[in-house]
Amino acid sequence: MKAITATLLMFVAMSAQSGPIAIVIHGGAGRIDRVTLSQERERLYHATLEQALRTGYDILRQGGSALDAVEEAIVVMEDAPVFNAGKGAVFTAEGKNELDASIMDGKNLQAGGVGGVASVKNPIRAARAVMEKSPHVLFTNRGAEEFAAENGIEIVDPKYFFTERRWNQIQKWRKEQEAKPQANAKRNQHSDYFGTVGCVTLDTKGNLAAGTSTGGMTGKRFGRIGDSPIIGAGTYADNRTAGISCTGHGEYFIRHAVAHDISARMAYKNNSLAEAAHDVVHTVLKKADGSGGIIGIDALGNVVMEFNTPAMSRGFIEGNGKIKTAIFK
Amino acid sequence: MKAITATLLMFVAMSAQSGPIAIVIHGGAGRIDRVTLSQERERLYHATLEQALRTGYDILRQGGSALDAVEEAIVVMEDAPVFNAGKGAVFTAEGKNELDASIMDGKNLQAGGVGGVASVKNPIRAARAVMEKSPHVLFTNRGAEEFAAENGIEIVDPKYFFTERRWNQIQKWRKEQEAKPQANAKRNQHSDYFGTVGCVTLDTKGNLAAGTSTGGMTGKRFGRIGDSPIIGAGTYADNRTAGISCTGHGEYFIRHAVAHDISARMAYKNNSLAEAAHDVVHTVLKKADGSGGIIGIDALGNVVMEFNTPAMSRGFIEGNGKIKTAIFK
Repeated sequence: MKAITATLLMFVAMSAQSGPIAIVIHGGAGRIDRVTLSQERERLYHATLEQALRTGYDILRQGGSALDAVEEAIVVMEDAPVFNAGKGAVFTAEGKNELDASIMDGKNLQAGGVGGVASVKNPIRAARAVMEKSPHVLFTNRGAEEFAAENGIEIVDPKYFFTERRWNQIQKWRKEQEAKPQANAKRNQHSDYFGTVGCVTLDTKGNLAAGTSTGGMTGKRFGRIGDSPIIGAGTYADNRTAGISCTGHGEYFIRHAVAHDISARMAYKNNSLAEAAHDVVHTVLKKADGSGGIIGIDALGNVVMEFNTPAMSRGFIEGNGKIKTAIFK
Repeated sequence: MKAITATLLMFVAMSAQSGPIAIVIHGGAGRIDRVTLSQERERLYHATLEQALRTGYDILRQGGSALDAVEEAIVVMEDAPVFNAGKGAVFTAEGKNELDASIMDGKNLQAGGVGGVASVKNPIRAARAVMEKSPHVLFTNRGAEEFAAENGIEIVDPKYFFTERRWNQIQKWRKEQEAKPQANAKRNQHSDYFGTVGCVTLDTKGNLAAGTSTGGMTGKRFGRIGDSPIIGAGTYADNRTAGISCTGHGEYFIRHAVAHDISARMAYKNNSLAEAAHDVVHTVLKKADGSGGIIGIDALGNVVMEFNTPAMSRGFIEGNGKIKTAIFK
C-alpha cells in the first residue's frame, strides 16, 4: 500500500515531459567513533554533503542530465578536504596520492574509469572523459593522466593533494607499521573506508547515472586498485534496474561484483532495489566479512542507502526537494 | 537423455574421493581469415592448445588443484609466441608490451589480477601471487611489477616480449594510423582479439578456477586496461555456479560484466551454464555489437565454448581424456 501510494504521488508530480528526479550520495562507510568525531568535523561532513546534494539536485531540477548531476555533485566532494577523494585523498606508503574514479550511464551502459592518477584535480571528470572521448573504459596511472591532459581536464601539481590531516595519518601509519605491520594492516583499511565518495541520480528523462571517487587506502602499495574505478564492482548503472555506487573494503566488492550483483538480482530474481541491496550488504558481504555500504536509485526514483558498518556519511533529496543527511545509523 | 547419460557416466567415473575433472581453454576469439591462415600457423595453434590442455589435465588427473591446472595451462600459452599473451604479446602505440592477467578461485571467491606489466614473464603467475600473497585483488603497472619481483615471480628484460611478427604488426598499424586513424581503430581491435588466452578447470574436489591473460590491443595507449584483469568482466569463478574466462572486445565485456553476468543468470534465473552463456554471447553482446566469446565449466563438469565471432581458438578434455581442439565454427 505504501509503495502504491508513493508511486501514485510520483506520477502526480510528473508533468507530461518530465519524470521524477532523485539524487543520493555517500561520503564513505566505515568505523567512525562518535565520541572522537569533533563537532567541527561532523558539521563539515553535513555541510559538504548538503552542498553536493544541492549542486546535483539543481542540475536535475533544471532538466539537466543524470550524468552531469553525478559529475558535479562528486566534484563538490572531491574539492572538499573532508572526504578521501580529490583534495582530501589519503597518502600511499610512498607518501604520494593516487586517486581512482569511475562513472556509468544507465541509458546505454557507457562507462569510464581512471585508476592511480596523481595529478588530475577531479578524477571523476577524467573518468567521464574516458567514457565520452575514448572507445575505452579504463585507463591507469600515467597513461590516464596523459589522456586527461590531452582532453582538457584540469591538471594540478601533485602537491595540491597535500593536506596536513592526511599527512599526519600517513606518519602515524608508518610508525604503527614499524611496530606491528600485520595487526595494523586490517585496522587501517577499515578506518579508511570512511571517505570514498559516490553519487547516483535519476533525471527527468528517466536516465540513471552513478559515479564513485576515492583516494584509496592510507599506506597502499603496488598501484593497488580498489573497487571504485571498476565497473561492476564499485559502480554500475542500468536504466532497466538501478544505479549503484559502493564504498567499503574494495577487495570484497570486486570479488562479489557488488554493484552488478544488485542490478542482476533485480533483473533476474525480480528483487526490488531495497531487497537486492539489503541481501547483498547484510547477507553476502557480511558473511564474507566484507564491510561497507552502497547507495542506489531505481528507475522509479526509489532510493536506498544500506551499510553494514557503524557509519556511512550519506544524504539524499526526495522529489519534494527535502534534503536529508546523516552519518550514523 | 544425452545429458543424463553424460551425468551417469561422470558418476561412474568418480571414485569415493574424487569427482569429475574437466578443462577448457581458449586462445582468443575474433576474425581470422581461413584463407590467409597458413598451415604452419594453424598447426601451431592446435599444437599449443593441445599442449596447454594436456598440462592442465595431467595436474587435475593427479588430484592437483583447479588453480594449479589453470595457472600451468595458461603459462604454456603465455610462453608460446603464437598467442597474444606473454611472449607473443602485441605492441602498444609506443612500441612497448603491456600485459594483463587475472585468476579466480571458485571455492572462496579469492581473486588476483595485474594490469599493464612490462617485465613479468608470466602475468598469470603474478595474478596468482596477488591473490595468495596480498590482501588485494588488483595491482597495476610498475607497482604490480615490484610486487611480482618481491614475491619471486620471474622478471625478464622487456625485450623478451619482442617478436618479429608483432613488431611488423605495430609498424603496419602505425602506417595505417597515419593514413586513416579513425577507420583503422575499429578494424585493429577486432583482429587483435584473436590471441587472448584463458582457461577454466574443475578439479577432483569439486573446485572450479578460471584465469585469463592478454597482451591487449595492438597500438593501445594511455595504460588502457581491458576486461582480462577485471574480476567479473573477463574472469569469474564460483563453485555454486561456474568458472568463466572471456575474450573479445574488452570494453563491452566490462560494461556488461560478462563473466559475472553468466554466473548471476545461473544463480538467480536457474539458467544452465549453456543457456546463460548462449544468451549473454548471442543476445546481450551481439545486440550491443560486442564481439567475442567465452569458455566455462559448471560444477558438474559441463563445458561451454560460445562465441559470436567467425572464429575462437579453443579446446577441452572430457572426463574420458579425449582431447578436442578447434579454431573455426
